[in-house]
Amino acid sequence: MKRAVVLGGGMVGATIAADMCASEGWQVCVADVRQAPLDAVAARCRVDTRRADLSNPAVIAEVCADADVVLGAMPSALGLATLRAVIAAGKHYVDISFMAEDPLPLAASAAAAGVIAVVDCGIAPGLSSIMCGHAVATLDRCESLLIYVGGLPVERRWPFGYKAGFAPSDVIEEYVRPARFVERGELVVREALTDLEPIDLPGLGTVEAFNTDGLRTLIDTLEVPNMKEKTLRWPGHVELMRAFRATGLFDVEPIDVAGQAVRPRDVTAALVFPRWTYEPGEADLTVLRVEASGGGRTLRWDLLDYYDPATDTSSMSRCTGYPATAVARIIGEGAFPLGPGVYAPETPGREPGFLARVLGDLEARGIGVRLQETR
Amino acid sequence: MKRAVVLGGGMVGATIAADMCASEGWQVCVADVRQAPLDAVAARCRVDTRRADLSNPAVIAEVCADADVVLGAMPSALGLATLRAVIAAGKHYVDISFMAEDPLPLAASAAAAGVIAVVDCGIAPGLSSIMCGHAVATLDRCESLLIYVGGLPVERRWPFGYKAGFAPSDVIEEYVRPARFVERGELVVREALTDLEPIDLPGLGTVEAFNTDGLRTLIDTLEVPNMKEKTLRWPGHVELMRAFRATGLFDVEPIDVAGQAVRPRDVTAALVFPRWTYEPGEADLTVLRVEASGGGRTLRWDLLDYYDPATDTSSMSRCTGYPATAVARIIGEGAFPLGPGVYAPETPGREPGFLARVLGDLEARGIGVRLQETR
Repeated sequence: MKRAVVLGGGMVGATIAADMCASEGWQVCVADVRQAPLDAVAARCRVDTRRADLSNPAVIAEVCADADVVLGAMPSALGLATLRAVIAAGKHYVDISFMAEDPLPLAASAAAAGVIAVVDCGIAPGLSSIMCGHAVATLDRCESLLIYVGGLPVERRWPFGYKAGFAPSDVIEEYVRPARFVERGELVVREALTDLEPIDLPGLGTVEAFNTDGLRTLIDTLEVPNMKEKTLRWPGHVELMRAFRATGLFDVEPIDVAGQAVRPRDVTAALVFPRWTYEPGEADLTVLRVEASGGGRTLRWDLLDYYDPATDTSSMSRCTGYPATAVARIIGEGAFPLGPGVYAPETPGREPGFLARVLGDLEARGIGVRLQETR
Repeated sequence: MKRAVVLGGGMVGATIAADMCASEGWQVCVADVRQAPLDAVAARCRVDTRRADLSNPAVIAEVCADADVVLGAMPSALGLATLRAVIAAGKHYVDISFMAEDPLPLAASAAAAGVIAVVDCGIAPGLSSIMCGHAVATLDRCESLLIYVGGLPVERRWPFGYKAGFAPSDVIEEYVRPARFVERGELVVREALTDLEPIDLPGLGTVEAFNTDGLRTLIDTLEVPNMKEKTLRWPGHVELMRAFRATGLFDVEPIDVAGQAVRPRDVTAALVFPRWTYEPGEADLTVLRVEASGGGRTLRWDLLDYYDPATDTSSMSRCTGYPATAVARIIGEGAFPLGPGVYAPETPGREPGFLARVLGDLEARGIGVRLQETR
């Protein structure tokens, strides 16, 4: 038996744990500082649980001591410290924490420790990155990479047509942070929420795509002259968010309100929080399109996934967690195609068979991806 | 020479003062607690000014002592107290303060004091009310009164397409207060911002009309089975305001924001205030349609007025102030058609020639009203 240790028992951590637990030949331990999520995940599958303060690197070392592979589903603010601690513990690592910092400079210490660490291993970045790496390796000369991704409520309700699978404040951050993309080999920076375009996706209908800062490591790891990631929402949401932003509702500079200094974004986050939170059992969906062109060929992957009512598993946690568990199993089997180091997913994605193996694991979990190739 | 005393030297008060000053046979005194507006109005026309705290009824009595007619352009919160003080001083009064309270119960004390007081004497209520009174007196049987009114910026700018001629908090109040209207003789109460309809107005194009609580005294003074007032905005504004309201941005219940109790509406008002404030010299417009039907006839009045760059006078203050000055002159000439009492404008509006006289005065000031009659 191999042993997986899952750091963080939140929504995605629990889905990761349940999936590793259901994988033949794996036993699983989930660690979290909170007891309630540990109880919830223990009720869902046969895992060990460990209540532990994972903000302490020494505790991480101890929790990971007997792991073959560690999976990280920690808050992004703890992402880098956790990666460091797991490398120091000499353990292989797959992470979905989406840390703000650049993790790749830790490659040397990972190599020295004999550790394989794959970061940003969710859906986008994550699965999308693997597809991009695959396209770069497959096409004669990849000229363009386009990524469209969104997590949406199945039922649209006015006025937002949106609920957040994660903290509303992180969504708002996505709506204000300048978006970087690559155009004719140049880095371009555009305001977020711009370049709104309707896009028809199979099985979904028309959604709206707009600029957000989603390329992450791809900007540095891939030499493709045109790369862009856009986020998807139901029509109307972006116009409303643009109006909110223009009103100052996303501002972080405090304003004076009846003698108190108040950050408008805090007020907005507090108001939208209950309105953007999924009800228990409420269905979400995840949609991803990755389109790669070059040498006269175009590869287009389309994914559309829904909430699983049988296991009460959100589509967001399925689509974020299953790429990570697929990569963890590959590492655990000794089948990871590269040596020790810290990798963004596009790097192993370049290797033959890697994408196919990940897609096979997703398919087995009911997440079908359709590939269309045109010349 | 007759003497007019203007209480309040704000935007409308100054326009009222300048207009009375330009009227033959009138001399004018403007009173305000603030020196700056007094200096501004004195620079604009030959008026006396008087710095005085008009929140004190005894001061009002003193300021009005030598007046033939008093015109009130005070904040609405001081409206009722000012009316009381002017009646107690035994002076005729025309008021545009738009007080929240019902002023008509003061009719007996006005009658006892020999005072004529006309309240709500702006554009709507005000001019619109006079038109309604005229229609009720003119049509065989008035079945329906429809009032559409709006004050708008000439240049529309995203996202609001709106600026406020008065305090944004009063506008927000208009967007939350339930709207009352009369349908088949019954009082109907609807949420504000509802029953949105596009409406094409001559010279203006398409605007959007929606329910606000604007009928005021008409509900009680006129026995017309169908009466409705709707507010006008450039298209798109109402949908955005509905979204703001649904988000909780107009809520007055405090919420907890980082340990502070904050009223969301205060934050919203603080944010929109600079965005809804006219720039110096920025052009506004006023649009009014009143449509009265009955006995197979329809009377329709249309008014469209613009900012006057020659005198830097906003359309809002022109259209609010000139009905008041017209009525003040009528009273000053001894031509008011009714005896002492407190009147909403629809009541003298029923009397022959009253509307024509007011419209004549507006016409002389460049505010043309087009009447269409259909059978």
